[in-house]
Amino acid sequence: MAEQAASATEKDDPERQKGQLFGIDRVTEPGTLPGMLEAPEDAVTSRVHVTTYGPEHISEHTVSTVDEIVALRGKEAVLWVDISGLADIELLRGLGKAFSLHRLALEDVVNVHQRPKAEDYGEYVFIVTRTLVPDTFAETEQVSMFLGPGYLLTFHERPGDCFAAVKKRLHDAAGRIRSSGSDYLSYALIDSIIDGYFPKLEHYGESLEELEDDVVANPDPEHIKELHELKRDFLMIRRAIWPLRETINTLIRDDHSHFTDATRIYLRDCYDHTIQLIDIVETYREIANGLLDVYISSISAKLNEVMKVLTIIATIFIPLGFVASLYGMNFDGDVSPWNMPELRWAYGYPAVLSFMAVVGGGMLFCFWRMGWIGRGPARKRERRRHEE
Amino acid sequence: MAEQAASATEKDDPERQKGQLFGIDRVTEPGTLPGMLEAPEDAVTSRVHVTTYGPEHISEHTVSTVDEIVALRGKEAVLWVDISGLADIELLRGLGKAFSLHRLALEDVVNVHQRPKAEDYGEYVFIVTRTLVPDTFAETEQVSMFLGPGYLLTFHERPGDCFAAVKKRLHDAAGRIRSSGSDYLSYALIDSIIDGYFPKLEHYGESLEELEDDVVANPDPEHIKELHELKRDFLMIRRAIWPLRETINTLIRDDHSHFTDATRIYLRDCYDHTIQLIDIVETYREIANGLLDVYISSISAKLNEVMKVLTIIATIFIPLGFVASLYGMNFDGDVSPWNMPELRWAYGYPAVLSFMAVVGGGMLFCFWRMGWIGRGPARKRERRRHEE
Amino acid sequence: MAEQAASATEKDDPERQKGQLFGIDRVTEPGTLPGMLEAPEDAVTSRVHVTTYGPEHISEHTVSTVDEIVALRGKEAVLWVDISGLADIELLRGLGKAFSLHRLALEDVVNVHQRPKAEDYGEYVFIVTRTLVPDTFAETEQVSMFLGPGYLLTFHERPGDCFAAVKKRLHDAAGRIRSSGSDYLSYALIDSIIDGYFPKLEHYGESLEELEDDVVANPDPEHIKELHELKRDFLMIRRAIWPLRETINTLIRDDHSHFTDATRIYLRDCYDHTIQLIDIVETYREIANGLLDVYISSISAKLNEVMKVLTIIATIFIPLGFVASLYGMNFDGDVSPWNMPELRWAYGYPAVLSFMAVVGGGMLFCFWRMGWIGRGPARKRERRRHEE
Amino acid sequence: MAEQAASATEKDDPERQKGQLFGIDRVTEPGTLPGMLEAPEDAVTSRVHVTTYGPEHISEHTVSTVDEIVALRGKEAVLWVDISGLADIELLRGLGKAFSLHRLALEDVVNVHQRPKAEDYGEYVFIVTRTLVPDTFAETEQVSMFLGPGYLLTFHERPGDCFAAVKKRLHDAAGRIRSSGSDYLSYALIDSIIDGYFPKLEHYGESLEELEDDVVANPDPEHIKELHELKRDFLMIRRAIWPLRETINTLIRDDHSHFTDATRIYLRDCYDHTIQLIDIVETYREIANGLLDVYISSISAKLNEVMKVLTIIATIFIPLGFVASLYGMNFDGDVSPWNMPELRWAYGYPAVLSFMAVVGGGMLFCFWRMGWIGRGPARKRERRRHEE
Amino acid sequence: MAEQAASATEKDDPERQKGQLFGIDRVTEPGTLPGMLEAPEDAVTSRVHVTTYGPEHISEHTVSTVDEIVALRGKEAVLWVDISGLADIELLRGLGKAFSLHRLALEDVVNVHQRPKAEDYGEYVFIVTRTLVPDTFAETEQVSMFLGPGYLLTFHERPGDCFAAVKKRLHDAAGRIRSSGSDYLSYALIDSIIDGYFPKLEHYGESLEELEDDVVANPDPEHIKELHELKRDFLMIRRAIWPLRETINTLIRDDHSHFTDATRIYLRDCYDHTIQLIDIVETYREIANGLLDVYISSISAKLNEVMKVLTIIATIFIPLGFVASLYGMNFDGDVSPWNMPELRWAYGYPAVLSFMAVVGGGMLFCFWRMGWIGRGPARKRERRRHEE
Repeated sequence: MAEQAASATEKDDPERQKGQLFGIDRVTEPGTLPGMLEAPEDAVTSRVHVTTYGPEHISEHTVSTVDEIVALRGKEAVLWVDISGLADIELLRGLGKAFSLHRLALEDVVNVHQRPKAEDYGEYVFIVTRTLVPDTFAETEQVSMFLGPGYLLTFHERPGDCFAAVKKRLHDAAGRIRSSGSDYLSYALIDSIIDGYFPKLEHYGESLEELEDDVVANPDPEHIKELHELKRDFLMIRRAIWPLRETINTLIRDDHSHFTDATRIYLRDCYDHTIQLIDIVETYREIANGLLDVYISSISAKLNEVMKVLTIIATIFIPLGFVASLYGMNFDGDVSPWNMPELRWAYGYPAVLSFMAVVGGGMLFCFWRMGWIGRGPARKRERRRHEE
Repeated sequence: MAEQAASATEKDDPERQKGQLFGIDRVTEPGTLPGMLEAPEDAVTSRVHVTTYGPEHISEHTVSTVDEIVALRGKEAVLWVDISGLADIELLRGLGKAFSLHRLALEDVVNVHQRPKAEDYGEYVFIVTRTLVPDTFAETEQVSMFLGPGYLLTFHERPGDCFAAVKKRLHDAAGRIRSSGSDYLSYALIDSIIDGYFPKLEHYGESLEELEDDVVANPDPEHIKELHELKRDFLMIRRAIWPLRETINTLIRDDHSHFTDATRIYLRDCYDHTIQLIDIVETYREIANGLLDVYISSISAKLNEVMKVLTIIATIFIPLGFVASLYGMNFDGDVSPWNMPELRWAYGYPAVLSFMAVVGGGMLFCFWRMGWIGRGPARKRERRRHEE
Repeated sequence: MAEQAASATEKDDPERQKGQLFGIDRVTEPGTLPGMLEAPEDAVTSRVHVTTYGPEHISEHTVSTVDEIVALRGKEAVLWVDISGLADIELLRGLGKAFSLHRLALEDVVNVHQRPKAEDYGEYVFIVTRTLVPDTFAETEQVSMFLGPGYLLTFHERPGDCFAAVKKRLHDAAGRIRSSGSDYLSYALIDSIIDGYFPKLEHYGESLEELEDDVVANPDPEHIKELHELKRDFLMIRRAIWPLRETINTLIRDDHSHFTDATRIYLRDCYDHTIQLIDIVETYREIANGLLDVYISSISAKLNEVMKVLTIIATIFIPLGFVASLYGMNFDGDVSPWNMPELRWAYGYPAVLSFMAVVGGGMLFCFWRMGWIGRGPARKRERRRHEE
Repeated sequence: MAEQAASATEKDDPERQKGQLFGIDRVTEPGTLPGMLEAPEDAVTSRVHVTTYGPEHISEHTVSTVDEIVALRGKEAVLWVDISGLADIELLRGLGKAFSLHRLALEDVVNVHQRPKAEDYGEYVFIVTRTLVPDTFAETEQVSMFLGPGYLLTFHERPGDCFAAVKKRLHDAAGRIRSSGSDYLSYALIDSIIDGYFPKLEHYGESLEELEDDVVANPDPEHIKELHELKRDFLMIRRAIWPLRETINTLIRDDHSHFTDATRIYLRDCYDHTIQLIDIVETYREIANGLLDVYISSISAKLNEVMKVLTIIATIFIPLGFVASLYGMNFDGDVSPWNMPELRWAYGYPAVLSFMAVVGGGMLFCFWRMGWIGRGPARKRERRRHEE
Repeated sequence: MAEQAASATEKDDPERQKGQLFGIDRVTEPGTLPGMLEAPEDAVTSRVHVTTYGPEHISEHTVSTVDEIVALRGKEAVLWVDISGLADIELLRGLGKAFSLHRLALEDVVNVHQRPKAEDYGEYVFIVTRTLVPDTFAETEQVSMFLGPGYLLTFHERPGDCFAAVKKRLHDAAGRIRSSGSDYLSYALIDSIIDGYFPKLEHYGESLEELEDDVVANPDPEHIKELHELKRDFLMIRRAIWPLRETINTLIRDDHSHFTDATRIYLRDCYDHTIQLIDIVETYREIANGLLDVYISSISAKLNEVMKVLTIIATIFIPLGFVASLYGMNFDGDVSPWNMPELRWAYGYPAVLSFMAVVGGGMLFCFWRMGWIGRGPARKRERRRHEE
């Protein structure tokens, strides 16, 4: 109980969810009717939040039917219908009829594994983006928008505060948001979604840097796993960001002028941000790939060290042990003088010990020359060269 | 017997077929006449299924000759001739003549290893796609279509239910399918083929995820094989999907307006799906490649562990064993006081035991300092730093 | 003697020739005159084979001078001069003059290491392709063509039957070949060259599949070599096919209409085949690269197995051996009761044996727990989880 | 104290700073107002340096208010306002108003992690470049410029001498700089920024070459770390240079003619330099990647050497040791003649020694034949072949 | 002394020079005046060689001042000024004035690390190419040309015979060189430069092939080094050739018609050669990369072999040695019948020997079954399958 509460508040330790990763687990049956609306499996109850505003006034409305929404249309310069939770298919269908939205676009709203895209339907433009789900690793959730003259419909899977900052700006009448049309509102939301990726990436950047230090200092099998998961997360984020760039580019080059020229300059700024995001993710991916090489190299180097220790010990003591065993043989010296006469020499034992010392010392010298112990002569020479 | 039956019904354990993989095993002899029609080697008896429909009526016909098909042409808004099995070359030739199809296109119908493509012959457009064969790993089968004004001819290699859902929709008059022309029917079939890839990929996604867990936890040579086969399957699927994307793009940009503008919006949806498929396959391929690195890293790390154990044991006991052997030598102490006087010391044995204990303990301490046993001092320090 | 004869007839075991591989061994000196004609080093005596044909008649001529060829020009719809062997430079020069061919093009004919290309000289188009040399691994030979109005000149390095199938079709008047112009003949030859790659690739596909099985089952250093050679062969084939695709594309987009629209449809078919070839070669290359990874992984896994066996045996018996050596020491128990009193205990020997059994058994248990022997507890648990 | 002073003057040993690397640590909160100006976290006090010049006169001014700057505008052909340090936001805002700069551009000035880019705002062009920070590894700092008719505003993060050479040229009236407009000044600054990368890269080239020698001669785990850091630095430099190339290309193709044709020729020269930079960085990256392979190969080869030594020693002495132990057994020969009769043979000991010598010698011969000792017969033969 | 002479004449063993490799070591200071002329560091004394020729006459002149050159201009159809050695900056400046060359182009002449490029200055075209320096590995030297109406100025760093063949053709009046303009001369020189790469690449091809055989037969650490150097050389050559291709393409598409249409056909031939060069270099690079994999695989396989030998010997003799040690213990059998009664058995020794033989034989059998000795049962079975 207490633990759950803790994990809910801790942003740094989200649970890595299975199945979410690959994003194709809720696809409709092949061959079914296109444009057929079905709520996604784990859809949350829909909540409608309507805001109408112009340069002078702003008002929020709680509505329950599509008719109420239609009634609000045209009252102010901009009508913003924000729907969180996709369980209420009837609502969606009603909106589709009221704003004459194409059924394929509506299908894409509930089919929550779309890649970001912008589709121009003449009357309105349909925009799909993906925003990071807070308290998860790199999970993203679909945010769909219909931008038409004087209205903007937005849909997101779960209730959340991803648009809170924009709403605040609307109420504060900060900047030009209130005096601009629905296209500027749409831009502001997209911009806020894109900006949401930066703190996440910063967080990943730190993880990567820590991992970097750890791998170089102390390669551990745990690191591979961590690295693999990081790489997977980068893949996921990249999948969300790459098409976003193309989407925004489409909006900038938009033929039906859903966006005014003034807003397009702002979109160009958004575009720069997506390029920057892509740039960062690609850099991270390259660094992560490099880290794997570092890991493998470190492990190999460590193995080499381990083997050197074993080899040094074994090659010194195995021959010496053999000599010792040799004089532990029980050949009967009484039978013949050829049988182990060394055992009966006055200085046999010291002689053997000396022989062993010479062999052991010689081997140590060999290992030193080969550079296995200390720095070896090769290194020393090199060092001298450097110092000159 | 029972086993065979089982394998036929089990979708999860198809037999991986040899030779199928590379898709070039039934090529005609070099230099032969282009456009020459020859049934593929293991062709199945052709079965013709004719459907004519308009907004009001729909009727299915069992026909045996081309003349009967020609007679049905024009009776309703759309004539759909669906042929499964390619053994009946005469039928194909007859259709070619009746609908004035180009012989190269007809050759491609029976040459069942084509890449997906769309070729515009002015009067009609020739479309080749590939659908996954059920109960196999990643085998695909060719589906060819001739789309002309008021008619659609489809050819597939084996009888199967890949178009069952579309047929049902036709009979149910669901959606706009009955009121649209043959271009919409063509779209519906392509869409159904594309959608068929999703469940397969989902299945692969699960295999990949399971394998991921296994490789990190317990790398096993079996995993390499499995991974290699997964990668090969992804290659195969990718080979089928990549050109499909280009094919649909060609259809959307179609100059001769075989497709109405209304249908093109639906094709754009298809196009999005192929991009999504490509995206998923490429992601899987990257993850699979990453897994191989993880496997190699894990194996290296395990080898390192094994070697450490060996080295620790050997470097401790080999020197101790040498000392024990030393005092197992039989030098004759009676001959001279220089010969192994230690053996005759009162506390010789305890002294040797103590010496051994010191040597062994010293080595253990060294290994601990080098971080081979326990966490080592380096790690401890690091840990402390983290906690601060 | 007998062996040589055998290897000459066996298609499956060609000798891998050195120096041929890199295809730059017969380049003219730098700075020499461009367009200078020199027979290639190992050129074969030229043989001229002239065919003239129209829809009605076809006749073959044996000619020895260029004048005879010129005399035949225009007699029938198409004049086909097929020259095998490039030793007769005078002949080439004469043809060059008679058909006003550019000297650079002529130079390319004898400079037999050209990449496939199509160069439009206005009056005629110069086409270079490469065909596989039979009974070799992946060696290719240059086939050059001059396609002009009413004539086609073809040059190949060695006499061979690569055009036999097309000649037969000419004589059989099969298909539209006799009623079409020289452009269709040119297409037919290119098509036949391209089709020649398929059986070779099929053969390679089989080798790859066999190698795949072997590498997974029993990685052997021999496999690396084989794999490396396969990869090199794929590189060679790819070098011949890639530019071929571009060449055919150039011909399709041909501005001077050397090709009629009807023939271009056939060229489009050729183009599809080259794309299919490239697709297959690239797939093979990817699989071959994957196999190398599999090889390295398998070898690593095997090394791990070997090391585990060594470690288990050594870590069990080295300590036990130490204990045995310990009680083989000759400390004199008569001197003091401290010297190896165990040797004089009544149950000393059984006690030592029991101690050894306990130590050995304990180690075995450890190894089992670490998963080195049998399946280990971790695996067992996992298995149970799976079965649930 | 003394050490700090030293590190400040030593260009070769900058401290590698953490956190700087990933360049996203000072991003504004998601959803905040676009175009909102906030000084970067560690901004330095702004210092304004104004230069006005024409072909005849040049004068420098110390100004403290925007009004003074405005007053200077138009007095001479060119007004150059150079601002170092970005702490004074009011100044920035004032300039923005005075020169009617877009707020998004101003925001980019203080958001100092922009990628190089050029944005055309009609009246003026906004250029972002990055210059290397002296005494760091591969850190870059943002330099922003507003180029308008008759004026150039430049902003850099820290006071420094990166424009010193250009200022000197202005005062010396060297070349055409004084007689050209603000566009030429802008070019001169960009050129100076680009040229600044060359010495750095030269320095890296030398490091790479030294590392190359070291890795081949004496692979050391330290090298991996060094290599990884080099690769990261190359990544950072590449991130700064790649977009720079595109930026300059944009300026060359500039539609609003902020740049005269004469200056564009100079920009083309700049463009060549960026391509050369990219070329060098990519070459370095390839060499660095190759070095990692060399490192891994060297380590593997060394491990092989170590293992050979161990194996040779162990396989020779372990069997011999076994024989010695055998005759160290204490079977009681008095009990039966079957118990170790060899011990009582007259030549038992010499026989055992001879046997051991034969076994040891045989093994050495085997190792020589396998090429483990000396050059082995295989190598010798090969050598002979080479010499022939 | 004698050695130096030898190395100077031996083309096959050039000294690999340091510092040359990265080609950026003589860059001017950042911020300096563009177009400032400074002789490169190790510039050789300039030598001017002037040739004037037309279809009828050709004459060579030794000149010392720019005025003499100007005086010769226009006397014949073509004026060719060939300058080797770049030390005489005054000469360069004089030529620049006489032919009104842009100072940026002049700067590029002395800045000898340019990438190949072609820059059109309207009146003339400035071409930079790189030629291989004879007797080096893959060093290249810059050759710059100014091609204007009726004149060609060429600059190369060191006196050499790279244009000797072209000069001979001029004197021999071979081909169309004398009757063509300066553009054809320019083409002839570029062609000669490009052809110069082929013998070098051929040489590298042979090295690669030899190395290939060696690596497969006997992997040696020396090979890695060699391979790394080969790869570096390929990188260098590629850096010189890639932009050359683009350069020639620019010349072919040349807008100001510095090249006549007749010469452009020859340039197209040049273009084909550069593509062929690129193709060869890329193939070599791929093969070299493959070789590294082969090397690593071979080393791994060898290590595996070594470890198997060690493991077999150790696992057989360590347990046997333990048994021998066991019966070397000195437990006093007189104290109790429990102490080592085996030693007093009549057949104790033969029994132990038999036991050892059984254990050793059993282990050998195990190793054979695991395929470590001989071919193992698995292989045998496989072989049988193959033979069937």
